[in-house]
Amino acid sequence: MKIQKIPEASIVRMSVYSRYLSRLDQKGIVTTSSGEIADGVGVSPAQVRKDLAYFGEFGTRGVGYNVKDLHHHVLKILGLTNEWPVVLVGAGNLGTALCVYRGFRERGFKIVGVLDSDPKKHGQPLGDLVILPMDKMEEIIKENDVKMGIVTVPSDFAQDIVNLLVKYGVKAILNFAPRAITVPEDVELRNVDLAVNLEVLTFKLSS
Amino acid sequence: MKIQKIPEASIVRMSVYSRYLSRLDQKGIVTTSSGEIADGVGVSPAQVRKDLAYFGEFGTRGVGYNVKDLHHHVLKILGLTNEWPVVLVGAGNLGTALCVYRGFRERGFKIVGVLDSDPKKHGQPLGDLVILPMDKMEEIIKENDVKMGIVTVPSDFAQDIVNLLVKYGVKAILNFAPRAITVPEDVELRNVDLAVNLEVLTFKLSS
Repeated sequence: MKIQKIPEASIVRMSVYSRYLSRLDQKGIVTTSSGEIADGVGVSPAQVRKDLAYFGEFGTRGVGYNVKDLHHHVLKILGLTNEWPVVLVGAGNLGTALCVYRGFRERGFKIVGVLDSDPKKHGQPLGDLVILPMDKMEEIIKENDVKMGIVTVPSDFAQDIVNLLVKYGVKAILNFAPRAITVPEDVELRNVDLAVNLEVLTFKLSS
Repeated sequence: MKIQKIPEASIVRMSVYSRYLSRLDQKGIVTTSSGEIADGVGVSPAQVRKDLAYFGEFGTRGVGYNVKDLHHHVLKILGLTNEWPVVLVGAGNLGTALCVYRGFRERGFKIVGVLDSDPKKHGQPLGDLVILPMDKMEEIIKENDVKMGIVTVPSDFAQDIVNLLVKYGVKAILNFAPRAITVPEDVELRNVDLAVNLEVLTFKLSS
């Protein structure tokens, strides 16, 4: 499936819809509508229909969507019907929090290796894993066919770590360091800036 | 300023623009254009113009935007020309990481209190602060006129903590617990689901 020009906001919403559909399915609800999904996640019904339309025809006019089918379709679109092995670099507080973050595992992301440059951390347990030295990066990535990396190192080291991940074959990187990072064109980079979330709130408090 | 119906995605982008404008300003660049901002942050020039147009007329046709002026306007729109006191509840790994997260302080968010229910943590230092018991919540909020709270407690406790924050006057809450939380209508809630970020990447890897 090669799809071009789908807005990133639509992809983020697909991820949100999939959570809502999962909850409906768990409650035993068989059929839903764009209106119900819209209410459940806080967007307009037209937005739900538009987002889904990027990926095909799912519902039946006048009947709505089968919850299980739509949920499966959305997960497939998001690439979440497989488990994704992930390597995490930087076992500080944030890295530690992410390693044990239930939300990743529930959505099919399995952290298969956690690396840190601090020798004092090497061999220490972190969840089901043990913190490894940086020179194990290549081995972990190749043995587990890892395509995704999470970078939670201090800003000054983030670009070097990203370069190493790319060198060893990682194709998608989630960067938490508040620093501009560059990657080759064939690598996807997503920067998580946690302050943006607070700024959406201050906007609402101020307006 | 009371503004209605501005898409949240536009507000998030305003936050992103403000970072880019700050970088331009630091480099001593005086004038910019919607095209340059668009290139710098990875959206279309039309999107930049549309987002800014929600808030007024900023540029001069044929000349562009004055970097300092536009930066100040955007910060003002986002409510970031003041410092915001914030209380954080839950001094686990994620809470600890957020307490020392430079990105918050740089953007004017000052964590003035960190609370945890675990007596073993009480009195322990965390950055410039000391971890306090939950029963200090009211005092911290009222003394510092806190309007924002960050919740990093385990999912099962998140709703109770949110209820307490609301009771003591917090009007905007950033929740990291992967659990549906409800708030009264006059309180803003933003749920941070860190897995969404990975799912945008798997979509791109899969497509």
